[in-house]
Amino acid sequence: MKEYSVIGKPFPQVGSVPKATGSAKYIDDITLPGMLYGKILRSPYAHAKLINIDTSKAEKLSGVRAVITGKDIPPVKYGMGFDEYAIALDKVRYVGDQVATVAAIDEDTAEEALDLIEVIYEELPAVFDAEEAMKPGAPIIHDSAETNIGYKVGHIVGDLEKGFAESDYIREDRFETPMVQAAFLGPRGSVADFNPTGGALTLYTEATMPFSHRPWLAKILGVPLDNIRVIRPYIAGGFGNKSGLTIDVSFCASFLSMRTGRPVKLIHTREEEFITTRGRDPVVVYFKTGVKKDGMLVAMQGRQISNAGAYLDNSPLTARQNIGVFDILFRCPNVQFEVYDVYTNALPSRTVRGLTNNALGWGEQQHFDMIARDLGMDVVDFFLKNAHQKGDVTTSKYKLDSCGLVECIQEVAKASNWKEKRGKLPPNRGIGLAASGHTCGARYGAPDLSTAVVMIDREGAVRVLSGRAEAGMGPGTMQIMCVAEELGLAPEDISINEFVDTDTTPFDSGNYASRGMVQQGNAAVAAARDVKHQLFEVVAKKLRVTADSLEAKNRRILVKGSPDKGMPFEEAVKAYWYEGKGALPLIGRGAYSPPTEDWDLQTGEGNASIAYGFGVQAAEVEVDTETGKVKVLNVVAANDCGKVINPLILDGESEGGISMSLGMALLEQISYDEKGRVRETSFSDYRLPTVWQQPQVKTIWVETIDPHGPYGAKGITEVVSLATAPAIANAIYDAIGVRITKLPITPWRILEALKEKGRA
Amino acid sequence: MKEYSVIGKPFPQVGSVPKATGSAKYIDDITLPGMLYGKILRSPYAHAKLINIDTSKAEKLSGVRAVITGKDIPPVKYGMGFDEYAIALDKVRYVGDQVATVAAIDEDTAEEALDLIEVIYEELPAVFDAEEAMKPGAPIIHDSAETNIGYKVGHIVGDLEKGFAESDYIREDRFETPMVQAAFLGPRGSVADFNPTGGALTLYTEATMPFSHRPWLAKILGVPLDNIRVIRPYIAGGFGNKSGLTIDVSFCASFLSMRTGRPVKLIHTREEEFITTRGRDPVVVYFKTGVKKDGMLVAMQGRQISNAGAYLDNSPLTARQNIGVFDILFRCPNVQFEVYDVYTNALPSRTVRGLTNNALGWGEQQHFDMIARDLGMDVVDFFLKNAHQKGDVTTSKYKLDSCGLVECIQEVAKASNWKEKRGKLPPNRGIGLAASGHTCGARYGAPDLSTAVVMIDREGAVRVLSGRAEAGMGPGTMQIMCVAEELGLAPEDISINEFVDTDTTPFDSGNYASRGMVQQGNAAVAAARDVKHQLFEVVAKKLRVTADSLEAKNRRILVKGSPDKGMPFEEAVKAYWYEGKGALPLIGRGAYSPPTEDWDLQTGEGNASIAYGFGVQAAEVEVDTETGKVKVLNVVAANDCGKVINPLILDGESEGGISMSLGMALLEQISYDEKGRVRETSFSDYRLPTVWQQPQVKTIWVETIDPHGPYGAKGITEVVSLATAPAIANAIYDAIGVRITKLPITPWRILEALKEKGRA
Repeated sequence: MKEYSVIGKPFPQVGSVPKATGSAKYIDDITLPGMLYGKILRSPYAHAKLINIDTSKAEKLSGVRAVITGKDIPPVKYGMGFDEYAIALDKVRYVGDQVATVAAIDEDTAEEALDLIEVIYEELPAVFDAEEAMKPGAPIIHDSAETNIGYKVGHIVGDLEKGFAESDYIREDRFETPMVQAAFLGPRGSVADFNPTGGALTLYTEATMPFSHRPWLAKILGVPLDNIRVIRPYIAGGFGNKSGLTIDVSFCASFLSMRTGRPVKLIHTREEEFITTRGRDPVVVYFKTGVKKDGMLVAMQGRQISNAGAYLDNSPLTARQNIGVFDILFRCPNVQFEVYDVYTNALPSRTVRGLTNNALGWGEQQHFDMIARDLGMDVVDFFLKNAHQKGDVTTSKYKLDSCGLVECIQEVAKASNWKEKRGKLPPNRGIGLAASGHTCGARYGAPDLSTAVVMIDREGAVRVLSGRAEAGMGPGTMQIMCVAEELGLAPEDISINEFVDTDTTPFDSGNYASRGMVQQGNAAVAAARDVKHQLFEVVAKKLRVTADSLEAKNRRILVKGSPDKGMPFEEAVKAYWYEGKGALPLIGRGAYSPPTEDWDLQTGEGNASIAYGFGVQAAEVEVDTETGKVKVLNVVAANDCGKVINPLILDGESEGGISMSLGMALLEQISYDEKGRVRETSFSDYRLPTVWQQPQVKTIWVETIDPHGPYGAKGITEVVSLATAPAIANAIYDAIGVRITKLPITPWRILEALKEKGRA
Repeated sequence: MKEYSVIGKPFPQVGSVPKATGSAKYIDDITLPGMLYGKILRSPYAHAKLINIDTSKAEKLSGVRAVITGKDIPPVKYGMGFDEYAIALDKVRYVGDQVATVAAIDEDTAEEALDLIEVIYEELPAVFDAEEAMKPGAPIIHDSAETNIGYKVGHIVGDLEKGFAESDYIREDRFETPMVQAAFLGPRGSVADFNPTGGALTLYTEATMPFSHRPWLAKILGVPLDNIRVIRPYIAGGFGNKSGLTIDVSFCASFLSMRTGRPVKLIHTREEEFITTRGRDPVVVYFKTGVKKDGMLVAMQGRQISNAGAYLDNSPLTARQNIGVFDILFRCPNVQFEVYDVYTNALPSRTVRGLTNNALGWGEQQHFDMIARDLGMDVVDFFLKNAHQKGDVTTSKYKLDSCGLVECIQEVAKASNWKEKRGKLPPNRGIGLAASGHTCGARYGAPDLSTAVVMIDREGAVRVLSGRAEAGMGPGTMQIMCVAEELGLAPEDISINEFVDTDTTPFDSGNYASRGMVQQGNAAVAAARDVKHQLFEVVAKKLRVTADSLEAKNRRILVKGSPDKGMPFEEAVKAYWYEGKGALPLIGRGAYSPPTEDWDLQTGEGNASIAYGFGVQAAEVEVDTETGKVKVLNVVAANDCGKVINPLILDGESEGGISMSLGMALLEQISYDEKGRVRETSFSDYRLPTVWQQPQVKTIWVETIDPHGPYGAKGITEVVSLATAPAIANAIYDAIGVRITKLPITPWRILEALKEKGRA
């Protein structure tokens, strides 16, 4: 394998020191002169007509600078369903829907003004469950449609009927998951700064796709695209959930700033954060699978019903992605899968790390465990028999140019002592295993592009400019390491822009779908090579050699094979700037746009990702059958990351992903009272796993050297967060012989299941 | 002459709307969270030893966060003479010298703390006049030297003795000018933000050479160069005076921020501004000139004594430049000129628009007027006989690749009705004429370089990035116009960075010595052509033509000669971004570094500027012989600007330059009381010309199409500010027959001179 000096070695994340010392600027640290504070009045009803809004008293309150309702703004609709106003105009569709917004000299005054706004509602019947909402006679959430099915996508490959007919064994299951939230440590907010001179808007917001937010802002605000500048400060957690605009704070702050001509800050309270943050879709998923006696898959059929909530937002993306994910792990000739996005009066859903692959995988990996058990097979052997391999193309056209699934299964089986433990652990202890596969990037419409710039100034300072989102997964650190590797420098020699500013940062499609590693990494490598080439030309001239004969290593530029012939990097930079006449700014440019395909809107088919990541986890649990409490003892994870770039970040990603999946398995949910009000409004109600719940984790990295990724690397941010929950569920079955089909696996559900088992 | 669509047409300055509406951010608008406020304790003595400083009481004052004296900082010296500490260590050398600095939670507290610092001084004898300071026995300002002569430069060409021997007429004169200040509308200040994590300093300061400030900051503060970031906000007036660091506020704010770990703002009060702002050197200049009967110059000898004040700062640059300027206008075979920079206990001197060319020209242009009168010649004929012309190389090696001096003389003579008016105006009215020549850039050490970047985003927004200083002369507007011309766009289609940030803005040597037009203009043109080429390649492919056959015009990219064949600019940009795979950031790079020479440090010779500007002015005055008041009625100016880029800005420059030179002639001076304290501490004492003093101005632009400048243009920011004062002096002589040799020409001096003339 190729020797690298930076790649593969641990390097602490850039930004970690400012974060630890408190100097990192998050959205609430953005304070502009003359700034006002915004607040939002929200609907107390899940479904109601807006009859009248009287803002006169609020407007008269001293210190109030603007009150805006849906009637004051252009009636332009947002979202993939074009079904949502920035501020409700005619109807409200969930508890928390924006009804009016206020700007005042301080937060208290704005809050007081909200109380003075008089709204007359006419309450309508509401529906919260997606399957209920699909039934005839259910209240229709969007009057223009005849059903509550907002989007449907599905594909069939092969012959299902024949497949099931040829099967020796067929099994059907149903699983259910509630909404879980990304649960950011810092509540979401935006600061809008509209300059009436020239009509330009600067929006500070925690966007993980800052460039892609501009078209929506332009459309909704009625400001020309050119005049919209988005600045991303530090992000207090992203988890894929900030790839869409935080529409309430961003649109309301912008409208308030446009109205007042002053900067406006609008930050959620923690309560608002819980009642309005669009989490991962609640999902019901049905499986029917046919296999041969020996475990060979013959037919797989599935149906996913996603609760989109009041508005479609970007749920169709989630739906399309799961089409491919359904059989990403295993070879099967006859496949059908369909996904429905259903409107209800629940909180709208939105992409969260892994999307509904978490819900699908949670069900599917239990479903396969049951099939293996029903056949009397070890699930490891079942997986090995069916696993996709390098070179395979899935039914939904995913091209697996690298695939380490088999190695991951073998590594986990070995490291977890699977054969020795499964079914052989002491009473109430069990081990379970689950696999996962996910895209590394996804083509959401026109060009999926990352670009990067590497600038070297006269003092030899190397700066990377990139439009990535720093939300914890360290894309900037990764880019710095790539640039360091290419330039023969150490990562600490290189800096990178902290904030992203769409006016000055080179374009990037953003961080979503685990695309950062491949796209942003390749762009950084290309930019570094471009600037290196410019330096090499100068050095080659001085040394009277050709530029191709040079290499950059150990902070020097050397003639390959003659390490004595060369000069320090800094000297080469000085030669560039000082010996040439009119040296051009020493800027290298790089770009990467993968040769992928858009998903077909009807079938969801298409090779939308350039690479695919895989992972397998084994979890060992202990169940207290008296209390129903589940303790996860340890997790062994093996992930195919293509190539390890930074083991420090990778291990952190793995441990974080396991924690997040464990939270989904055992603790987290958004639930509603009878009026559709979110019950979990604080971290006391919405329980995240803490360090006390974190099991011992051993992570193994399988290096398959993907042909497309930088140095062979692939994105695994989502892969690592998928398999823990089903592995835990399978381990619980191994421990106590019960199946929980509805998340979270609360002690109460364990006790109920044990009771049921006892009855049976 | 070539037809342009943008060049030569009026376009309002970018930044003028924000300035007019108040949204432009100047240094005092920079407010950072947790910011402290700094103040400086200054010496009340012109010359004294520092015996002791007791800061204990100040440190105990509630709200004080740091008190720093010279002993608390590294003993590293600043300036071209390496003669000055950031805070005085052993001695103070002028009234206002920094003795200590304080950071506190607000300005009042900091001010109060200054009063609590107890300093024991031992007063020393002081000297304020440069000629006095050169005499044996004068107090020595810098103990390490034997004389007060801080720097000397001079050259001799030809044979002076022979030249004077061959002359038919020889005349000698002496002239004197006081210090004048740049008198910024906004007092100077800096905001320093030192981040203890990583030890990086960000300095917001009104630098007109932001990149060049970094090495000095690194040296004095002891912070690595890489870790210093300079950000230039809007500048409240520059006039060449901000090309050096505003050392008190910049160093003190930085040290205070480094000590406290918090941002520190330090802004001058108006009084501090007057007593510490380093104005243009007070100068005494001696002339001895020999001519033939017909006016032909045979020998020119001169000696300039500049009062450098307490520290040398950048006075040597001023001295070197005047060597070449001495005979820039006229051909003369035998030339000697020398300049002395002399230390005194006056306020230090520093570059101000035109440097001491103003003082030199003021004397020289009167001296020549007297010679012409003595010979019975019209000064116009005298000038025309001796004037330099295109292709000449001066004795100090200035290469005049373009020179419109003759045309300027002719245009002014014509437009002012010179022949009809001179000596023929009614009593107490007179007309005078003066010429000027100046560099367009000056090579101050290693590379004189401007670079620029033109970025085009996916929406077609064109952004220029440049490191220029916006201080009123509109270099950004000029760059936008150049880019618009090259890309076939309108200037309003293009934006440019408001602030300069050394971390992200491409390198620029800065704005000084009228270098902006040629260097920054050429860099912008080059960057625009680079990005245009990239666009043309895409368009050429689409249209199946070669890139050379294309041109950009009227917001379209067209096949030359086939205006129907082409596409809108925006469409070309879309094609670039969306049709290519992995489009590189669409960035054009440009650079310009003139093939000039460094000045010889001993002789001051060398072609340090790539181009030279020329101007001639005629002023008409009326003198009230009762009161001594001089009213300037009108000024006709003709300037060789090479090529008019933006007549709106050029006319403004001319009117402003005339006003500034008129102020120097009639109103402005810094004077001292017997203790060396500056008398003029407000705009009531330091009188600037207002609109009431502004004469009628007619400006004529002579286009010589310089071979080096963009579209033939040259910088004229300084040229236009040189000739008014001597033209007024010559006009006064024409009106009332008296010569004033010491500036300013106050009513009192007029009355004295008239009294003297009556006595004679």
